[in-house]
Amino acid sequence: MEKIDIIFLESSLETIPKEIKGSGKKTKTYNEILDINIHYKNMLKLRDFSKRGRPDIIHYSLLNILEKPFVTNGYVNVYMHVYDDRVYKFNNNIRIPKNYDRFKGLMAQLLKYNKVPPESEDPLSFLVSKNLNEFVKNRKILLLSENGEDFNVEGVINIAIKEGLTIGIGAFAHGDFKQEINKIAYKKARLYKGLKLKAWDITCAISSKLMEMGIF
Amino acid sequence: MEKIDIIFLESSLETIPKEIKGSGKKTKTYNEILDINIHYKNMLKLRDFSKRGRPDIIHYSLLNILEKPFVTNGYVNVYMHVYDDRVYKFNNNIRIPKNYDRFKGLMAQLLKYNKVPPESEDPLSFLVSKNLNEFVKNRKILLLSENGEDFNVEGVINIAIKEGLTIGIGAFAHGDFKQEINKIAYKKARLYKGLKLKAWDITCAISSKLMEMGIF
Repeated sequence: MEKIDIIFLESSLETIPKEIKGSGKKTKTYNEILDINIHYKNMLKLRDFSKRGRPDIIHYSLLNILEKPFVTNGYVNVYMHVYDDRVYKFNNNIRIPKNYDRFKGLMAQLLKYNKVPPESEDPLSFLVSKNLNEFVKNRKILLLSENGEDFNVEGVINIAIKEGLTIGIGAFAHGDFKQEINKIAYKKARLYKGLKLKAWDITCAISSKLMEMGIF
Repeated sequence: MEKIDIIFLESSLETIPKEIKGSGKKTKTYNEILDINIHYKNMLKLRDFSKRGRPDIIHYSLLNILEKPFVTNGYVNVYMHVYDDRVYKFNNNIRIPKNYDRFKGLMAQLLKYNKVPPESEDPLSFLVSKNLNEFVKNRKILLLSENGEDFNVEGVINIAIKEGLTIGIGAFAHGDFKQEINKIAYKKARLYKGLKLKAWDITCAISSKLMEMGIF
């Protein structure tokens, strides 16, 4: 059976940038992650700040796909592209932290060492590409975008399988994908006639359809 | 069109019980909610502690259903039964806090005043029944349970609509529903041949199917 790759794009995840360093207490690892709930005031001065500091978006999205049978059995692979353009893969057997602060702690470590746990031979997550261009080189991205051609969820999965496309889901709060990503897209698909949906809703729709298709 | 009611049962949500009061700092409202990530050691002495202190479960489940078109248009109503047996309804227009601590803060206020905001005439959430028996009086519950009859997701929705059943989803971590709930159930349905699923996964499956059925 053909495999499916899914990548979360522009995930709103990064460590606190140097422009606003020192503005918050960083006593615990999870406090090293930029979070609009904590750093709002200091974030206002950041470039495209409305797309940053929302680690909850990728957290909820991952909760809706990792640990599902089609991931643990290796049929679906899950990747995460982050704000600074690096791309990570999740181990198909990862159990993702349910607690938000623990998740942020794990992500802080991942962004620092490019691998968690840093010394592991079979890490929970690890760097696969220094930037998105490198990741996309031999791939075709099916970008889920409000500006795409109309598809239903099953159609998205079927075309991804048939043409070997990597499904791309934006994991940020507001606005469109950045220009480079729009350019990279091989095809754009919109679900539900372009209804505004959250990243974890789209993930949930794909996840449920994969379950329904019995891929487990 | 017939409406659908969904209730989260035995949601693992409560304020810190008096048995372990004083064991944690309660400087902020969100710290008033029992959370296994914070109170683990003190929870070990609590009765059925493995079903308690997981407010994240109801949070992720609500994130997968509230704010969807079928809720905001009034077609689906969402209820929450909590550990101490009270039942709350969510306003169909609620925007649920995405941040975990803010969610816990809101829930602490709800459990304290039975209404949030306490003075509102059109609250985000409010008490509808003092206990589950009172809530169930004129209802038939379709319990989603690993011990039920085989159904697919569409079948669950269709029978709920046809027979006017309230769909019940367990929102706790481990073990079966308590005896009273098993007794109350009018019918039990299991999804995916009884595969172990998290509350938010089941919610996601139902939510996605409602979207697919075009109820928005």
